[in-house]
Amino acid sequence: MTRFHLEVRVKPRPGLLDPQGKATHHALTSLGHEGVAAVRIGKVMDLEIDAPDAETAVERTEEMCRKLLANPVTEDFSVSLLGEVEREEAEA
Amino acid sequence: MTRFHLEVRVKPRPGLLDPQGKATHHALTSLGHEGVAAVRIGKVMDLEIDAPDAETAVERTEEMCRKLLANPVTEDFSVSLLGEVEREEAEA
Repeated sequence: MTRFHLEVRVKPRPGLLDPQGKATHHALTSLGHEGVAAVRIGKVMDLEIDAPDAETAVERTEEMCRKLLANPVTEDFSVSLLGEVEREEAEA
Repeated sequence: MTRFHLEVRVKPRPGLLDPQGKATHHALTSLGHEGVAAVRIGKVMDLEIDAPDAETAVERTEEMCRKLLANPVTEDFSVSLLGEVEREEAEA
């Protein structure tokens, strides 16, 4: 069993309203930041998963996205494998 | 002036409490997902920035992170340049 480090990005689907992004866009412009054309905000999740191999770790994480981490109606997700967690780090 | 697409990731600093990650970790385990060792949750922001060149776009985005997008005490940020926004897409 190896511990893998994965990153999940969950973003609002294109075209859907993103009030958090809109508010941040407005705040940036109010603070004088120039040239901001669009802001959209989602979540990034760092997961450490124990699995026999990298493929299983990615499959399990995608399953978690479908079941819990992302809203299938309003959000898209992507899963990236960042690597294995070092033994020492894993036990810390 | 070119429109650039950038991605900002803002994550809770290692060692700091992350209640959202803790709750998600607990929920995943309750739902029967095996092998989840750690979950930490941050934000991912997609920005479109009009700037004369890519270097300026990245610099401006880093400045926005220092001033507004990230909490300098509790969060770390990273900025990635994803590319230029196509003309058609920019006007949509």
